[in-house]
Amino acid sequence: MKYGFGVDLGGTTVKLAYFDTEGTLLDKWEIPTVTERGGEQILPDIARSIENYLSAHRIAKEDILGIGIGVPGPVDRKGNVNRCVNLGWGIFNVENALSKLTGFPVKAGNDANVAALGECWKGSGQGYTDMIMVTLGTGVGGGIIIGGNIVCGARGSAGEIGNMIINREETQVHTSGNRGCVEQYCSATGVVRLAKRYLAASDTPSALRQQDTITCKAVFDAAAAGDGAANAILEQFYALLGEFLANICTAFDPEAVIIGGGVSKAGCVMIDGFYPHFLKHVFHASKDVSFKLAALGNDAGAYGAFYLAVQAFC
Amino acid sequence: MKYGFGVDLGGTTVKLAYFDTEGTLLDKWEIPTVTERGGEQILPDIARSIENYLSAHRIAKEDILGIGIGVPGPVDRKGNVNRCVNLGWGIFNVENALSKLTGFPVKAGNDANVAALGECWKGSGQGYTDMIMVTLGTGVGGGIIIGGNIVCGARGSAGEIGNMIINREETQVHTSGNRGCVEQYCSATGVVRLAKRYLAASDTPSALRQQDTITCKAVFDAAAAGDGAANAILEQFYALLGEFLANICTAFDPEAVIIGGGVSKAGCVMIDGFYPHFLKHVFHASKDVSFKLAALGNDAGAYGAFYLAVQAFC
Repeated sequence: MKYGFGVDLGGTTVKLAYFDTEGTLLDKWEIPTVTERGGEQILPDIARSIENYLSAHRIAKEDILGIGIGVPGPVDRKGNVNRCVNLGWGIFNVENALSKLTGFPVKAGNDANVAALGECWKGSGQGYTDMIMVTLGTGVGGGIIIGGNIVCGARGSAGEIGNMIINREETQVHTSGNRGCVEQYCSATGVVRLAKRYLAASDTPSALRQQDTITCKAVFDAAAAGDGAANAILEQFYALLGEFLANICTAFDPEAVIIGGGVSKAGCVMIDGFYPHFLKHVFHASKDVSFKLAALGNDAGAYGAFYLAVQAFC
Repeated sequence: MKYGFGVDLGGTTVKLAYFDTEGTLLDKWEIPTVTERGGEQILPDIARSIENYLSAHRIAKEDILGIGIGVPGPVDRKGNVNRCVNLGWGIFNVENALSKLTGFPVKAGNDANVAALGECWKGSGQGYTDMIMVTLGTGVGGGIIIGGNIVCGARGSAGEIGNMIINREETQVHTSGNRGCVEQYCSATGVVRLAKRYLAASDTPSALRQQDTITCKAVFDAAAAGDGAANAILEQFYALLGEFLANICTAFDPEAVIIGGGVSKAGCVMIDGFYPHFLKHVFHASKDVSFKLAALGNDAGAYGAFYLAVQAFC
């Protein structure tokens, strides 16, 4: 049996995990992401943390298969990153750079794509070879798995489905600079935006009006308690989410769609909410797509990152 | 050098072509598609036509690598077709069936996907490994190529991008039973529908009002001659097509999109028309997608079908 590391590199922390090649997560820890000076310290910090772990646990370098890393930006098939804005990074080959620092072979991928691969390997996507993961968090992320492999695209930005346009009539500009993209409606912040808009445009009484700050969770809680306005707001969310999921399933015809991220904590009620809208719009041949909630939470990225190394070096 | 056949099976005719494995189209011909009695005669007719060709040209069976076939319906990775409505077919393995009839190995794919593979092999998509073909004809077809291979999906219906929803406000029901899908706007019949709607809703004088039957070509011709209404109609078409193409490029991040079908005969003026709308909506990392007109016309299906056999048996 060999072992290795899965690294999930985020804008504020780096999650590291130690695995065996069968996919048992044996240990995990975090270090801060130091983004000063163009993020030049990030990879040396990761290399040092891995080296410290190996020596502290007296693990022989020969037992290590390699390292996988997920990074918050486009990564192409060859491991070239193309500006990770959150990290201050420019354009370079992250696989070669981390490999040089550690002496181990390295495979890299985009963080959302790698999380999808993690769910496919050891989470809710186990047993599927064609699946899509949609992460409904502060933003909307996505990862596409076909034949068991990440679809990374020509420039490493495939799966950016949160940036697909779903409402060309939108007047408000999103932080991405676009108008009417999925992320403006189907993220946690999107649900809050829909709620504020609905409450401003109507006089319907609602428990939400008593809140100082409306959160996504508050909207789901109020809806569950029978609040009419909250249910009307969620119905807008479900209609848009169902149509969006229908469109990606019509294009890809996957076996399953895995839903993760903070919004998915609402649970099966959310799937029940968007499913009729999905069915209404999806191409008839793809009606049997399974919808599942993600299982690995914040560990999905580390699992998927290490599985990149397993796929490449095993 | 080996040889083989590419078969493009349509609802009214079967196009057959004889190739060498380098992709030289050496000969081509057609036979009618006999759809009576559940289309049971179709594969025997194809087998007989191939056998006749071999004996008429004294070609040894040992020189034949195999046969590829594109069929008008979903085909999964293993060659199972799932109801080709136009042919009267149910559910069976078309690869096994045609192989039994001919004695040659057979690979099958969906016709639109196979045409995309043909353009990738020997048409405008040469040199690309990640590309999407969009066929704007009577309907809107699509094929997705990733890593040089067709994406066929879990049920063989990936690439059905003409069935993606682009306008949830649409009131008219499409022949597919859906409302607001791409095909309702971006096909030749879609352009005619947009034209009739525009002319009915406005008093703008237009040369199109003098025509007994408005065709897609007539709209493009009138626009080129400076007709204001025709240009306004095409602007609606371009806005929807550009947004749709932006969405699929945001999801897949391809190197190139190849545009084929009757509408693409309008030529580069069409690409110039939708391109600003594409740029407005696409995710920034995928802005450099190349757009090209298809090169192989009606032969794309036969090329792609035979290339399926080359990929599988060479």
